[in-house]
Amino acid sequence: MEITKFAVPEIIFGRGSLNYAGLCARRLGAKKVFLVSDAGIEEAGWLQRLMNILEKEGIEWVYYPGVTANPRDFQVEQGAELYRKNGTDVIIAIGGGSPIDTAKGIAILASNGGRIRDYEGANKVQRALPPMICITTTAGNGSDISQFCIITDVERRVKMSIITRTLIPNISIVDPLILRTKSKTLIIESAVDALAHAIEAYLSRIASPFTEMHSLKAIELIVGNLKDAVDTRSLDALEQLSTASVSASMAFSNASLGAEHALAHSLGGHFDVSHGVLHPILLTAVMRFNRKYAVQKMADIGRIVLGEQLGSDLDTAQAGIERLDQFFAGLEVSQRLREVVEEEEWRYMEAICKMAVRDACNLTNPGPATWRDFLKICEEVW
Amino acid sequence: MEITKFAVPEIIFGRGSLNYAGLCARRLGAKKVFLVSDAGIEEAGWLQRLMNILEKEGIEWVYYPGVTANPRDFQVEQGAELYRKNGTDVIIAIGGGSPIDTAKGIAILASNGGRIRDYEGANKVQRALPPMICITTTAGNGSDISQFCIITDVERRVKMSIITRTLIPNISIVDPLILRTKSKTLIIESAVDALAHAIEAYLSRIASPFTEMHSLKAIELIVGNLKDAVDTRSLDALEQLSTASVSASMAFSNASLGAEHALAHSLGGHFDVSHGVLHPILLTAVMRFNRKYAVQKMADIGRIVLGEQLGSDLDTAQAGIERLDQFFAGLEVSQRLREVVEEEEWRYMEAICKMAVRDACNLTNPGPATWRDFLKICEEVW
Repeated sequence: MEITKFAVPEIIFGRGSLNYAGLCARRLGAKKVFLVSDAGIEEAGWLQRLMNILEKEGIEWVYYPGVTANPRDFQVEQGAELYRKNGTDVIIAIGGGSPIDTAKGIAILASNGGRIRDYEGANKVQRALPPMICITTTAGNGSDISQFCIITDVERRVKMSIITRTLIPNISIVDPLILRTKSKTLIIESAVDALAHAIEAYLSRIASPFTEMHSLKAIELIVGNLKDAVDTRSLDALEQLSTASVSASMAFSNASLGAEHALAHSLGGHFDVSHGVLHPILLTAVMRFNRKYAVQKMADIGRIVLGEQLGSDLDTAQAGIERLDQFFAGLEVSQRLREVVEEEEWRYMEAICKMAVRDACNLTNPGPATWRDFLKICEEVW
Repeated sequence: MEITKFAVPEIIFGRGSLNYAGLCARRLGAKKVFLVSDAGIEEAGWLQRLMNILEKEGIEWVYYPGVTANPRDFQVEQGAELYRKNGTDVIIAIGGGSPIDTAKGIAILASNGGRIRDYEGANKVQRALPPMICITTTAGNGSDISQFCIITDVERRVKMSIITRTLIPNISIVDPLILRTKSKTLIIESAVDALAHAIEAYLSRIASPFTEMHSLKAIELIVGNLKDAVDTRSLDALEQLSTASVSASMAFSNASLGAEHALAHSLGGHFDVSHGVLHPILLTAVMRFNRKYAVQKMADIGRIVLGEQLGSDLDTAQAGIERLDQFFAGLEVSQRLREVVEEEEWRYMEAICKMAVRDACNLTNPGPATWRDFLKICEEVW
């Protein structure tokens, strides 16, 4: 094995773990916290709950509410301005991937200056970031665990991947109780995001034994629990999805991803569509493209989703991919690109596919994917 | 699941990863490093190699060589004195558990003062420690990953467990190339230590899904590779043992251990015998004692060591324990206490067992173990 790195934040996991937020902030030296969240979290009452917890510990805060889905470069830059003005010392993000990625972007600019696009790619951040606590309110995005930050460059209409070890927060709090206030759609979109993370990290060219075991566990838990979590809202099933999300995130943060995420970033940036919507459309198509490069690993995935080994590894790999198609169909989500993108937009597809080739995630795909490969995949799933 | 925590250092793993030591030290702000090692590592040339790497990065060092097996309280206190005198800023330990635990003890005293016995138990360390890099030269002890530090109190003749999150080093470097210079005996003793960590952490009352998957992976890798690693010295097999050790350490650092380690600490402290010698004697006997509390989990272990499920979980659990007895027998190590302890020492056994009950590891044993239970186990394995 080549030299591999494994880094994860300190994780506090479990029902009620949100209550530790104040103690954690104090441990990081917080006097005045910079809070980042969004309207949905506010409405569900979680932001107020967090404010009360901080108050109990005698910690002040400044709140930055300027977060939307698929956070934009200018939102990050406004946030950094507010951070600097207010003399805050610790950043806490509560929410899904959007508030957490916004907070990470703010942290980069707060201590490194410049524009957020200066940091696109791997290892471009030089100076240490302010201490950060992430409290995830979804089970999927994984930004609370990972060294990734995805920000949309509005001018270029592309989701930029910013990847660096310093983006791993100091502490990640994962409280499955928070999932109870989430819509069915959000639970599904988050879980399929985690599933795509787990599968792409497992197939990654830089996967290690430490990431592989987390990938496989996450795949098993999502395929085994998502239907139940959505149908019954059982706290046990929701907790399993949270466990899966943490495991998938430990995997992809350290093994990175592949061609499917490269394409999802490019499509998502152009059409302002979230990963959770795109994965059921793209994931199995990209797996079919990758099958020739990674039959054995695809068979490992097949054994988990099928619960058995078929005759050959190739048969098991193939049947596993088909079972995933059925799994997505059972969730009643779009499995065709034309259902989420207007027909007339097809003319942009070549440019989108050329953008996907340059995405950092494409580097770790098990085999090389050219823009023509991407275009063929888009045709297949159109 | 109750609230659970998972914390591990940043890990740099792989053949040649030792070469990253200088860059890592610089990243932690090192100007003058406090080096801790022992005579065996010096002789094998690894210490000089590390010094050369630091020199290349323009980093000075002070070397503290006062480390023996089962490190003593006074050695830690001498080391802390030297640390303070020399204005050093980052601690690097290279070696097995003894240099690493000595370094951790020195780090505690350097920033918290007092005597090392003041910190015995869980969460007694208040102030942050100096930045620390651990470079393990064995595949087993796991102190390079864990929040544990074991120091012998010479006066009381007991191994003190000091357990606190701040004992997790900043960076752990695991280079399987270093294992090539180790003796057969040391490879076996280290691997059975990792095996005991994995099994006890799996059965622990505070095991979580995040620790359980690491435990099971470690058990599989050790049982599958130890014989080959010892017989052939194949680098692939040695690397598998390193992977197993890291996984076992991630598990036990976060799930803690059980009655077997409690007894091994107490016996080891009294008779100055290492864990690696005691585990093949104690582990299966303690597993038999614990079987009634954890049949299902014992069956999971059984399935891995046997490679199959027998009729019932109880049968699988039982057969798994027997297979572990055979595994130890195949290593040609002592499986009787009288082979490592003088007959006349039996008179101390009651006191030793009473000490074991109070060990922090006993708290997480799947069921309660009294001093009479421990004495019965010692009689069985005598």
